[in-house]
Amino acid sequence: MYRLRTLLLGSPLPTAGLSHEKIGKFKALAAFSPDALSSIAYANQEIFLGLAVAGSAGLGFTFSLGIIITAILAIVALSYLQTIHEYPSGAGSYIVAKENLGEFAGLLAAAALMLDYLLVGAVSLTAGVEALASAFPALFPYRVVMSLGILLFITILNMRGLQETGTVMSIPVYFFIGSFFLMIIVGLVRMATTPSIPFSPNLPAAQPLSILILLRAFASGSTALTGVEAISNGVPVFKKPESINAGITLIVMSVLMGFLFLGTLGLTQYFGIVSQGEETILSALSRHLFDNAFWYYLIQISTLAMLSVAANTAFAGFPRIAAILAEHRYLPSQLKALGDRLVFANGNLLLAAATAFLIILFRGDSHSLIPLFAVGAFTAFTLSQAGMVRHWIRKKTGGWRTKAFINGLGALTTGAVVIIVGVGKFIQGAWITLIIIPLIIYFFLRVHHHYDKIGEQLSLKGLPPELKPYPKLRFVMPISGVHRGIFQAVDFARSISKNLIAVYVEVEPGAGDRVRKKWEEWFPDLTLKIIPSPYRSIIEPFIDFLDRYDEEVNDGQLAAVILPEFVTEGFWGNILHNQMAWLMKFALLYRRRKKGYQQVIVDVPFHVREE
Amino acid sequence: MYRLRTLLLGSPLPTAGLSHEKIGKFKALAAFSPDALSSIAYANQEIFLGLAVAGSAGLGFTFSLGIIITAILAIVALSYLQTIHEYPSGAGSYIVAKENLGEFAGLLAAAALMLDYLLVGAVSLTAGVEALASAFPALFPYRVVMSLGILLFITILNMRGLQETGTVMSIPVYFFIGSFFLMIIVGLVRMATTPSIPFSPNLPAAQPLSILILLRAFASGSTALTGVEAISNGVPVFKKPESINAGITLIVMSVLMGFLFLGTLGLTQYFGIVSQGEETILSALSRHLFDNAFWYYLIQISTLAMLSVAANTAFAGFPRIAAILAEHRYLPSQLKALGDRLVFANGNLLLAAATAFLIILFRGDSHSLIPLFAVGAFTAFTLSQAGMVRHWIRKKTGGWRTKAFINGLGALTTGAVVIIVGVGKFIQGAWITLIIIPLIIYFFLRVHHHYDKIGEQLSLKGLPPELKPYPKLRFVMPISGVHRGIFQAVDFARSISKNLIAVYVEVEPGAGDRVRKKWEEWFPDLTLKIIPSPYRSIIEPFIDFLDRYDEEVNDGQLAAVILPEFVTEGFWGNILHNQMAWLMKFALLYRRRKKGYQQVIVDVPFHVREE
Repeated sequence: MYRLRTLLLGSPLPTAGLSHEKIGKFKALAAFSPDALSSIAYANQEIFLGLAVAGSAGLGFTFSLGIIITAILAIVALSYLQTIHEYPSGAGSYIVAKENLGEFAGLLAAAALMLDYLLVGAVSLTAGVEALASAFPALFPYRVVMSLGILLFITILNMRGLQETGTVMSIPVYFFIGSFFLMIIVGLVRMATTPSIPFSPNLPAAQPLSILILLRAFASGSTALTGVEAISNGVPVFKKPESINAGITLIVMSVLMGFLFLGTLGLTQYFGIVSQGEETILSALSRHLFDNAFWYYLIQISTLAMLSVAANTAFAGFPRIAAILAEHRYLPSQLKALGDRLVFANGNLLLAAATAFLIILFRGDSHSLIPLFAVGAFTAFTLSQAGMVRHWIRKKTGGWRTKAFINGLGALTTGAVVIIVGVGKFIQGAWITLIIIPLIIYFFLRVHHHYDKIGEQLSLKGLPPELKPYPKLRFVMPISGVHRGIFQAVDFARSISKNLIAVYVEVEPGAGDRVRKKWEEWFPDLTLKIIPSPYRSIIEPFIDFLDRYDEEVNDGQLAAVILPEFVTEGFWGNILHNQMAWLMKFALLYRRRKKGYQQVIVDVPFHVREE
Repeated sequence: MYRLRTLLLGSPLPTAGLSHEKIGKFKALAAFSPDALSSIAYANQEIFLGLAVAGSAGLGFTFSLGIIITAILAIVALSYLQTIHEYPSGAGSYIVAKENLGEFAGLLAAAALMLDYLLVGAVSLTAGVEALASAFPALFPYRVVMSLGILLFITILNMRGLQETGTVMSIPVYFFIGSFFLMIIVGLVRMATTPSIPFSPNLPAAQPLSILILLRAFASGSTALTGVEAISNGVPVFKKPESINAGITLIVMSVLMGFLFLGTLGLTQYFGIVSQGEETILSALSRHLFDNAFWYYLIQISTLAMLSVAANTAFAGFPRIAAILAEHRYLPSQLKALGDRLVFANGNLLLAAATAFLIILFRGDSHSLIPLFAVGAFTAFTLSQAGMVRHWIRKKTGGWRTKAFINGLGALTTGAVVIIVGVGKFIQGAWITLIIIPLIIYFFLRVHHHYDKIGEQLSLKGLPPELKPYPKLRFVMPISGVHRGIFQAVDFARSISKNLIAVYVEVEPGAGDRVRKKWEEWFPDLTLKIIPSPYRSIIEPFIDFLDRYDEEVNDGQLAAVILPEFVTEGFWGNILHNQMAWLMKFALLYRRRKKGYQQVIVDVPFHVREE
């Protein structure tokens, strides 16, 4: 077990090894952009699927929707630019919402964000596999297994810790950017050289074009914006001056994003591209432009690689927000422990399990995950921007009106998107989010309440400075017979107290006499009590005896129990012994909890060797 | 949980309630015959399936095979009649084989017998459901679920204990005997009144008739004999004179058995009955005679009821043989514990789980279970009879030659059947038995070896009469901070020893100083040791410290560890605490096992309340 673990995850790393390395803009772009840039893969697909319902008439709106979404991208990016300069320590939606709008808004943002991270993983992986399956249709039936396989790989990488792989990660990112640039340029050249292709997708309409269809396509397509916030969370890792460098990176990323998004959408509409069967629209575009050549396959593979890197960003974000929430006592404290590879191992595992669950539940279909994704992401956006508005109003520094206006515009726009998604996509899955987010918040509050209660009880406030002397101890020792296994326990008990009663629970009528005879032979000076057990249970009669004994003596404490315990080796030992000591401990701890008294249990193990 | 248990299984019964009721021949026949009598259901079916391969030519041998098998039945019954008189205490194949042929033959018989019981359950249930599905073909696809449903019902009945249901059980048994008598008489009358029906099943042959086909049909058909040994195991429950009454019951049962078996086979051949599709041959015969009338359905239902009762005999036999083997230390001792309803609850559950596994594995198809069944049953027969031969040779009482001859004939005949089944049905499943039985025997021997080893180590032999005085104790107490949770543990430790060291493992650099300050404020007289943990593990540095400390002091013992343990309530408490105390105990018990020393652990719980 241990060796396998070391092979997969590497050996433990000391705390002193925590890296505080700062990164430049080139590496930072590769680290923070994959989520945002790769979202064109599913956003384009959603716009196509949404508009194709209305046939050719619907597809005529492709580029127009693209322009609207890109405009919102500009607003959101500007909004976050302000956050970057105002919170140079890196503040996610949770912190901004909590500080400015109060606990509840903070928790709402945190819940939305955690859901968002889960869905980044699930959507990116499934969309990536769909891109690959477009090029190799034989893989389509295996997309759940393939998504899970990539997830497993990413999980192992993240359990090892990713410090050293920052540079490696840049390769697929710049490979993706380069290959998509190439495709768009090829497309533009083709446009220029063959000027007379009219828009004619020639697709029959399933429904007449309506506002609802356009709104739905917009709602799903707006997932193109997911990931824009990433840089604002990571400002401290930039080289100095952090905020300036982070801001420049954000601008570069947003421009790149707009170019790729509008470029692909425009070409799709111009050439009247329509995808058929299980193929994605980006694949159809690339196939049209490269005519099934080598370059086409390159584009599909780079899409899968980029989406896998994007899924990885969930592993950067989720465990960190979970650790912050655990620090604030809204999540179990296990989530804040750094594992022996200096990663939040529990958070990683929780994320991996939940993502796998989503992939299996939605059968590896990115399209059905999108409505959930959009609600989570845009709720977090809205709260974060609204928090900034409040921040400016409170602070009233120079130019606060303009700044509040920009963040307000961001909040309004993204809030509108939340409502459009929530209503337009309600039946398609947005309702799930509206149930899950309140449940998550309830969980946060319940956990918080629990830790508060425990904290009160552990507090030293009001404890008298003088501790009362501990009364004379009484010991009771259950025995299963007179054999070597109990001698060490008797030895131990004798060395600390003369007040010891051994108890034998007699299941088989008559066995008690034999035990007493042997006992008197070896321990004539010690008391042995024999308790009949007409119902053949061992534990209940023993606990009853303890309760009666405590009641009789009534000295303000419970008798301590000395348990002679067999400890066996290996497989055979474990299946062949009826774990009586464990059951007994459990019963003692939980059934004998009396107000103000504690049940002390002394384990005296007897090691039994095999062979 | 407890209430559901009581509702299903009834309240606990005292040991004094163990029934020693004796039963008369009428009830005894109902108690011991179902397994034997009901086997005509699958034996007839197997003979038909086996011979039908060779078409009409094959089916012409139906009655002849029946006569051969009935002759063997007579030999086996005579053989067991001698066992009954010689072992009035009731001796199964295991005891007879062990006493007369030695340990290994006994274990072989025991393994064969346990397998036999598992298969009685699986074969009877599936054959019963097949009988019902013959009448109601719509049920056919649900036969696995239906078999499991009946199994569950029988399991619950047996977990409650069956003492009071002996009389109730007689109803389906005599109902079955009566309804089959009726059918055979109707058939014979029909034969007499319509004398000129020739034998003409008119079935095309898939293979030419061969000796191998006949042998295979015989091998499978011989499962008609299973269950004949039941009475010999239960002699003590008969009214006095036990052996005489048991012997008479055995003779009555065997005659009944022969009549039902030959009667149904003879009629099947005479009327040229052929079953089609999923129907059983007995159903086809009954349908032919009663022409789909009410009586037909009655026969099918009585068959299902009888087979269910037969499956129940496995619950009477399996847990008892398992308990005897556990008593002899060949099986885990849990199997010999009487549950609170005075039944061998663990044996019942093991049997139910294994039977369910077989039903699911073989998809509820009795035909594919038969080869395994025959090997197990006839191996036990052979060993039991061979043991009797040895018994007579040793004893040499009056007429021992004749008696040895009869048992010898029994052993030879049943041994021949084992070989015929093993070879003829090798590919169809007999090979599985040949793998499983040795595995079971290996398991028996391994368990025995383990208990022997433990027994040696627990023995008081050679223990010095004077116990060495226990040396002065040293205590070490790990703490997670200075809070109320550790005060009671400190109290306890102080009351028994002044030699106490508290240990704080410092995961977060700097936390140690804060803990030391608080510690010195509250316990200025006690030592606190702070151990840095660069790899953030709590347990390893603590265990390392203990090891070093013991090495330094070197007083011939290990330091005892006092564990202040949080005990929380309910769901929230359990998920929100990282069970450090349990992990610590585990590490202490298993990692600190030193030759000759024992690791004493003192648990001082601190109960934390919710609300």
